Amino acid sequence: MKILVNGEKGGQIAATDRGFQYGDGVFETLRVRNGKPLLWDRHWKRLCRGLEQLRIPGIPETACLEDLQSFATVNECMVKLIVTRGPGPRGYAVPAHARPTRVTMGGESLATTIEVDVLHVGLCRTRAGAQPLPGCKHLNRIENVLARMEWGPDWDEGLMLDSSGKAICGTQSNVFILENEVLLTPPLRRSGIAGTRRSWLLEHARRAGMRVREEPLPLARVRSADAMFFSNTRIGLRRACWIDQARSLSDPGSTGLVDDLQALGAEMHAMA
Amino acid sequence: MKILVNGEKGGQIAATDRGFQYGDGVFETLRVRNGKPLLWDRHWKRLCRGLEQLRIPGIPETACLEDLQSFATVNECMVKLIVTRGPGPRGYAVPAHARPTRVTMGGESLATTIEVDVLHVGLCRTRAGAQPLPGCKHLNRIENVLARMEWGPDWDEGLMLDSSGKAICGTQSNVFILENEVLLTPPLRRSGIAGTRRSWLLEHARRAGMRVREEPLPLARVRSADAMFFSNTRIGLRRACWIDQARSLSDPGSTGLVDDLQALGAEMHAMA
Repeated sequence: MKILVNGEKGGQIAATDRGFQYGDGVFETLRVRNGKPLLWDRHWKRLCRGLEQLRIPGIPETACLEDLQSFATVNECMVKLIVTRGPGPRGYAVPAHARPTRVTMGGESLATTIEVDVLHVGLCRTRAGAQPLPGCKHLNRIENVLARMEWGPDWDEGLMLDSSGKAICGTQSNVFILENEVLLTPPLRRSGIAGTRRSWLLEHARRAGMRVREEPLPLARVRSADAMFFSNTRIGLRRACWIDQARSLSDPGSTGLVDDLQALGAEMHAMA
Repeated sequence: MKILVNGEKGGQIAATDRGFQYGDGVFETLRVRNGKPLLWDRHWKRLCRGLEQLRIPGIPETACLEDLQSFATVNECMVKLIVTRGPGPRGYAVPAHARPTRVTMGGESLATTIEVDVLHVGLCRTRAGAQPLPGCKHLNRIENVLARMEWGPDWDEGLMLDSSGKAICGTQSNVFILENEVLLTPPLRRSGIAGTRRSWLLEHARRAGMRVREEPLPLARVRSADAMFFSNTRIGLRRACWIDQARSLSDPGSTGLVDDLQALGAEMHAMA
């Protein structure tokens, strides 16, 4: 794995870094094609907003793009960009003059085409808790780690609910369902992280004339949906079925919409 | 600051360490006197339980004690012991064979005597959220960082409530009140971390014949309490008053109990 720390080749960070001490930082997972991060504007906007929420000083966009450009040696790869508050003395109090740490890491080669087979999804017991900074993609990710540990041998994704039993996200993705020819996804105001692919899809599905709503989705509604999808940077948009019932579409009326959505997913991948 | 990484002098950890990537690890903050960590049994027990909860392989107790012994060059100091799941490839999935990272850091000289003046306490807006692993002192500490950022210039501690408005903890301590000559502290079954000093105090207060109860404490009850205390490894047990009303005891009957508790705090410090 290639790792840059503040733009320099290396693989080490200070043990005093607040990213290590407290998870005091944010990250983005990017798909990089020929050195160009896809959907960069959306990633950058979320990153900057997260830094603001944590009151971590901003970092130069050009430095991030230069880091990412250096991954151009691989046609297509995943790169994780981490920005922390940087090193600090003992204790939760933030340093008066933080010097953020920027880490860019990854570079494993990926197929340029996106996979299309159906994801097998299980249900996680670990709940997606209420977040103190809604939408902030911070480094406190034990919930995701715990949920990921629950995967059975044949799972491709796990659905996470909030404390009231409503679907929030996959362990590493956003969730969508089709119900009566409407595309639905949870609002994510208290839990979960709104993905760059999620926002692209909602926007472009609306633009294409689909009926799209953000609505709370109790598990029963997901269970009885006509179709289920997950999205993230790596998988794009992928159709899914439950691991315990590889069920097909019950409502033939949805078939066209499933095709339309998958075409949109392919477009997102090509355009991004 | 002195830093040992897996027992070796250094100050760097791998950027791939899951402690840095996800906060996937646990920590203890120890008071070390002449190389001996105070209340070690309680710290060690909580550390091991946390590793079990996260299914991180255990580490040898002797290695930790040797690390801590090396801080004997300072009479009395604080040392933070961190154990993470160690390095891993990209993604939340835990490595099949984790190699935990052990970091011991600190060593700043402390007075051997404990401070006795009254803490000034404010109320934090950041809530103590429901934890996926109750009691686990893991490295996901953004809530504490955010709460600590709220301190006003004269605050010595900030009280944190849970989502339903019940007192849970200080930003870096446990909270107690006296009410009608009963020592009360919140149960911490869903939020917060039960401190080593908290458990020592509850045990020894009961043994000394005090009436002690773990009960949910809505803010109003804390506001109207006869006295308020906070405890942690560094401060021991300290009396507190609200920043906005340096109020004294309303109930003269409590005065004796306050003295008894403070004597217990001094005993804890001496014995630990």
